[in-house]
Amino acid sequence: MTTMDKKAEDLRVVGTRPVRPDGADKVTGRARFGDDIHLNNMLHGKMLRSPHAHAVIKSIDTSKAEAMPGVRAVICGKDFPVIEHKMVAQGEAGLADMRDISDNCMAKDKVLYDGHAVAAVAADNPHVAEEAVKLIEVEYELLPPLMNVRASMADDAPQVHEHSFPGAFIAPTEAHIANASRIHMANGDIEKGFAEADHIVEREFNTETYHQGYIESHITTVDWDSNDNLTLWTSTQGQFEIRDNLADVLEIPIGNVKVIPMEVGGAFGGKDRIYLDPVAALLSKKAAQPVKMAMRRDEVIRATGPSPGAHIKVKMGVKADGTIIAADYHLAYEAGAYAGGPIFLGVVSSTSRYNIPNLQVNGFDVIVNKPKTRPYRAPGAPQALFAVEQVIDELASLIDMDPVDFRIKNLTRSGDILLPGFPLAPLDTEALLQSVKAHPHYTAPLEGENRGRGVSYTMWFNLGAITSARLSVNPDGTVHMSSSNPDMSGTRMTLAMQAAEALGIDVAEFSANVPDSDSIGFAMPTVGSRTTYSTGIVVIEAAAEVLAEMSKRAAMIWEVEPDSVSVADGVFSSGDKSITFKELAHRMLDTGGPITVHKTGSPQSFIPAVAAHIVDVEVDVETGKVEILRYTAFQDVGKAVHPDYVEGQIQGSVVQGIGMALNEEYFYDDEGRLKNASLLDYRMPTSLDVPMIEAVILESPNPAHPYGVRGCGEISIIPPASALANAIHDAVGVRMDSMPMSPHKVCAAINNKS
Amino acid sequence: MTTMDKKAEDLRVVGTRPVRPDGADKVTGRARFGDDIHLNNMLHGKMLRSPHAHAVIKSIDTSKAEAMPGVRAVICGKDFPVIEHKMVAQGEAGLADMRDISDNCMAKDKVLYDGHAVAAVAADNPHVAEEAVKLIEVEYELLPPLMNVRASMADDAPQVHEHSFPGAFIAPTEAHIANASRIHMANGDIEKGFAEADHIVEREFNTETYHQGYIESHITTVDWDSNDNLTLWTSTQGQFEIRDNLADVLEIPIGNVKVIPMEVGGAFGGKDRIYLDPVAALLSKKAAQPVKMAMRRDEVIRATGPSPGAHIKVKMGVKADGTIIAADYHLAYEAGAYAGGPIFLGVVSSTSRYNIPNLQVNGFDVIVNKPKTRPYRAPGAPQALFAVEQVIDELASLIDMDPVDFRIKNLTRSGDILLPGFPLAPLDTEALLQSVKAHPHYTAPLEGENRGRGVSYTMWFNLGAITSARLSVNPDGTVHMSSSNPDMSGTRMTLAMQAAEALGIDVAEFSANVPDSDSIGFAMPTVGSRTTYSTGIVVIEAAAEVLAEMSKRAAMIWEVEPDSVSVADGVFSSGDKSITFKELAHRMLDTGGPITVHKTGSPQSFIPAVAAHIVDVEVDVETGKVEILRYTAFQDVGKAVHPDYVEGQIQGSVVQGIGMALNEEYFYDDEGRLKNASLLDYRMPTSLDVPMIEAVILESPNPAHPYGVRGCGEISIIPPASALANAIHDAVGVRMDSMPMSPHKVCAAINNKS
Repeated sequence: MTTMDKKAEDLRVVGTRPVRPDGADKVTGRARFGDDIHLNNMLHGKMLRSPHAHAVIKSIDTSKAEAMPGVRAVICGKDFPVIEHKMVAQGEAGLADMRDISDNCMAKDKVLYDGHAVAAVAADNPHVAEEAVKLIEVEYELLPPLMNVRASMADDAPQVHEHSFPGAFIAPTEAHIANASRIHMANGDIEKGFAEADHIVEREFNTETYHQGYIESHITTVDWDSNDNLTLWTSTQGQFEIRDNLADVLEIPIGNVKVIPMEVGGAFGGKDRIYLDPVAALLSKKAAQPVKMAMRRDEVIRATGPSPGAHIKVKMGVKADGTIIAADYHLAYEAGAYAGGPIFLGVVSSTSRYNIPNLQVNGFDVIVNKPKTRPYRAPGAPQALFAVEQVIDELASLIDMDPVDFRIKNLTRSGDILLPGFPLAPLDTEALLQSVKAHPHYTAPLEGENRGRGVSYTMWFNLGAITSARLSVNPDGTVHMSSSNPDMSGTRMTLAMQAAEALGIDVAEFSANVPDSDSIGFAMPTVGSRTTYSTGIVVIEAAAEVLAEMSKRAAMIWEVEPDSVSVADGVFSSGDKSITFKELAHRMLDTGGPITVHKTGSPQSFIPAVAAHIVDVEVDVETGKVEILRYTAFQDVGKAVHPDYVEGQIQGSVVQGIGMALNEEYFYDDEGRLKNASLLDYRMPTSLDVPMIEAVILESPNPAHPYGVRGCGEISIIPPASALANAIHDAVGVRMDSMPMSPHKVCAAINNKS
Repeated sequence: MTTMDKKAEDLRVVGTRPVRPDGADKVTGRARFGDDIHLNNMLHGKMLRSPHAHAVIKSIDTSKAEAMPGVRAVICGKDFPVIEHKMVAQGEAGLADMRDISDNCMAKDKVLYDGHAVAAVAADNPHVAEEAVKLIEVEYELLPPLMNVRASMADDAPQVHEHSFPGAFIAPTEAHIANASRIHMANGDIEKGFAEADHIVEREFNTETYHQGYIESHITTVDWDSNDNLTLWTSTQGQFEIRDNLADVLEIPIGNVKVIPMEVGGAFGGKDRIYLDPVAALLSKKAAQPVKMAMRRDEVIRATGPSPGAHIKVKMGVKADGTIIAADYHLAYEAGAYAGGPIFLGVVSSTSRYNIPNLQVNGFDVIVNKPKTRPYRAPGAPQALFAVEQVIDELASLIDMDPVDFRIKNLTRSGDILLPGFPLAPLDTEALLQSVKAHPHYTAPLEGENRGRGVSYTMWFNLGAITSARLSVNPDGTVHMSSSNPDMSGTRMTLAMQAAEALGIDVAEFSANVPDSDSIGFAMPTVGSRTTYSTGIVVIEAAAEVLAEMSKRAAMIWEVEPDSVSVADGVFSSGDKSITFKELAHRMLDTGGPITVHKTGSPQSFIPAVAAHIVDVEVDVETGKVEILRYTAFQDVGKAVHPDYVEGQIQGSVVQGIGMALNEEYFYDDEGRLKNASLLDYRMPTSLDVPMIEAVILESPNPAHPYGVRGCGEISIIPPASALANAIHDAVGVRMDSMPMSPHKVCAAINNKS
């Protein structure tokens, strides 16, 4: 595929800003989301959920619900097949236990968190279903809930699960730690390192549970037909993952399941797993009618997959010359009710961006009585950065070094070893930080009381992984592109642009869709900042095959050797003959038939990217409110395929990072019940809370991609919390050890200081 | 692909009778047809149709309709783009003029038949739309209607169209024949031939207009979105033909149109063209909402594409030894309101099955003021056979020869030249007729008054043409098959059976779908008895590629040369190692990723097939009613993939042929208005009208297909009318020259004779 490589200056389509094709329909309500499915005889399903965080289910009586007029089916845990514990590969998150996934969709013997599904009803309309749910009688025996990692890891903590979780890189912990698994990584000599340090800083941090905050709630419609074939219409990051998980959980052949991905109304990591799907499926089977289930907002917040809270300890040592000589990280993440949180990614993001000769990381994946956590845009990383980048700031200040210079001195560069056997792929990390230093925001004076400036720097990685795409040349010379990954961020456009670039034609000639799971090759879900990068490579490979085939057709028409045909900018030529792509497409059907190329590939993973943010704040010392005065986000995207989308990704990531940093959190009471399961009480930033985010795009080409593209969807959610914490310190001289840094905590910190 | 060839005795799956996968859902109402689409904000469109058969549109006033509450858009001919006359290739029917297709969807300056669309309304519900349609005021200037081929071909007939129709093989007629095009074919010396004949028979026949009689009416739902992308859900024989025609008629890029084919509730040739689609599209564009349009039954009958009436003259000469020495056929078919009826197929079917050394055929395609005709299962052939096979019967009787022996003496055999440059492909034509002779039905005595037996023999051809298919191996070893052709007759099953045969696994491991036009390679529509044959070849080729790729994976696991891996009956082996298809599928994702093979091909066309029918009748000489006592249909299908389906195709074809033969016809009054546009008045046979049809399957392998398959969907509609006519003659001694042979005509013939 090296023949398709293009230098930045030769790109005609990539780097431009065509009008986004899905925008108008989305804002006028015409785009089709999961809730836009209406089938004949469709029932509506509603769920009964546990009000307890931890309890044994003694009995369930569904008879009254079943007797209610309009009710067509009632199910509970016993209607699920009893499946074995079985680990399967799952997108970004590594491995998953299928039995856990089944139990999370509907509790069998025990409920493990407030909101855990217990039973479900399908009825002629949603109102009847809601009323019928209330008639189901469940007898519980309460157990004490474990609501944070320290409680779960305590010596006397009861063990929640009997089975263990053999995840990637994960080892059992010491026997006395009942509810956790561990990752351990080390290099150098940690004791010797700290002995050589001129200054040592040691701090401890806590972070809370966050919700991804997507607009569209979870929704699925399932039709289990008379031949045991299932069709699902759903909002998902991965039609194949939904298909395969459903087949595993229901013990039916994969071939019997077809998943039709609808437009996605936001996901950010929270929609790559089944929740309602097997429940709606079993209700549909029982009723012999299609069943739609949609979560209310409170169900989304209580019972889907939030981002984990964490408990983090950081100890770092620096020499007087600015060399970070040693670091010791303890990262304990909540897994939620089942094992398998973002522990590996948390560990990697705690360290990879700096060269630290003597290093030790202990990561813990800890069961708690909260919903099973799921990825949220750069999973695990904002928490680790909140801790580490504050300590970095403190170290720089101890040795009186500019915080950006300090980071430049210690940063990993291409070829440096990040993890054993894993050198940093080509990426100009210093260029990013130099551009921070040179930016007018960084050099501008910041005047006024209680104002401060903070910076943070991070590295993140793009997944490659299996992906599929198809190009079909239409007889009028337009081209259809199908890609296997649900479009969460404009990837139909960014992939079509790459195909247009490769074919040498205009992107306006393209249409694009995301087919159902029957209608394109397998792919891992849209996760890990991968689609524009990874599926892009496959699309470009497909385009090369299209051009090769079309060159053969031109050779056939001209009666010349295929090798004599060359193609550039959408024109095929041989000697003095030439024909345009469109003209040749018109000849397709009588020169051997239509041209459709389907490609599946698995591009390289762990493509690095870096970002650094500068933020200016003013702290209201009376109320603790932090106002953001100016925000500049620098991000290296390799090559911005569509700069508007890239800026949108950066700005959206920053705003979500600000939400985590300053306001958002799940409030549980002492019995483990969630007290703020609404978007009034779970307070995400609005446009009034943030200034315009300036996005500065850097382009250090990714050699693994023909046009140098890196994924850009996640990384900028990572730095905001740490940059804001550093800015708060700069403004009012306090170090924040708890995230979110909500007004009451800021006030308390200021009061403690004085 | 010869490696995939299998001898009949080695077939494990092909030839068995698995339970059909779509049956239960179809009979319980759960299958999804065009009317099962419900979109948010969907409008309902209704059409205003011309009450006149031929008239100039002087003016259209839509203002009152537009002002009616609930009406969202009104369109008429002026809302269509004015497109050029442009010939495009169209499925089985050869060529079509896109301007004609546009004008047929909605009249511009003139209406050309009773029911021709004139204007349309989209409203909040169908009732408002129907009322609003009545408020549209149209001023017409009436023209005299031309209602049959003789009127249209008369010297003084007014010319309906100014443009000519350069169809395949078609030449202009003499200038004085205003409304017809002609095909002329000849070999030998026709005058010398007749001079050598011992007996000459010369007869003239008329046939009427027939409807295909599908259950589901035409229906489409179109969403023209804010970016000018159109999505259509429709009942069609070809999602790509609908897509391409719509793009041509609306002058939009093909890439902007996505057609989702729903389950098809019958088609038989009547659903391979646009009718409502561009109207619903323009209404959707104007209203900026999706629009559903469904025809009422009377609209289907008045204004879609029936089978043409014909006027046929046959003159044949025979020698005393039984040699047919000369034939002269004049075949004039109604084209309907626009040129391009089944003239070529009518010409070919009039002759191909007999060797006639001196032959002349003149075929005419004649404009009349009836709806544009469309294919109906073996288009043009039942009409030609009705004429020729009666004359054959008469000739046999003149020389006192058994009618089957007479046909055997004259039949074309493999290698005989059918048309210039076109020899008959391998097919044992005599075996079929010998099996007729040997069958107990043929040898059984037929006793009783006014009873008679008739036979008829026909040849027909399968289309090959462009087709696409895709096989995806699922990680659990099940396989998904996508095929490009809408399933009208169980082809998802018959194609999956061929894939299962080729892969060596059970057909129960398969799921199958027919993707939308964005989600599989291009294909010509489901026409011409092609899908099981033609797409079957492509599916088998795809299976061969799947096995080759899986063999590589096995080689990788075993660390052996790929060439050393062989595969038989779903087991891969090399030396003493072996692994099943399912086991290897489980290893797929870690041996190079998923396996999806997409193939497009264009298998050979004009694959011959033959059929012969025997029928016993009793004629009620008082009423003219013909009762069918016994019916046996012999058909050579090459290899019956699923014998249940084949028998169903044969039985269904025969019943439709009986309907044509005895009852069905369009009744037009003198002003050209259709008087029987309902299924009460358009009288198709019911189960009470026909006996059990015995289907006798012959299997003379088709060497163009790895398993010998020939298409079987059309041919058995051809012989019933002529077999019945010959049986009526045998029963009561009259020759029927008009089809249908309805009771009043039979009575009249009997009365004329006596």
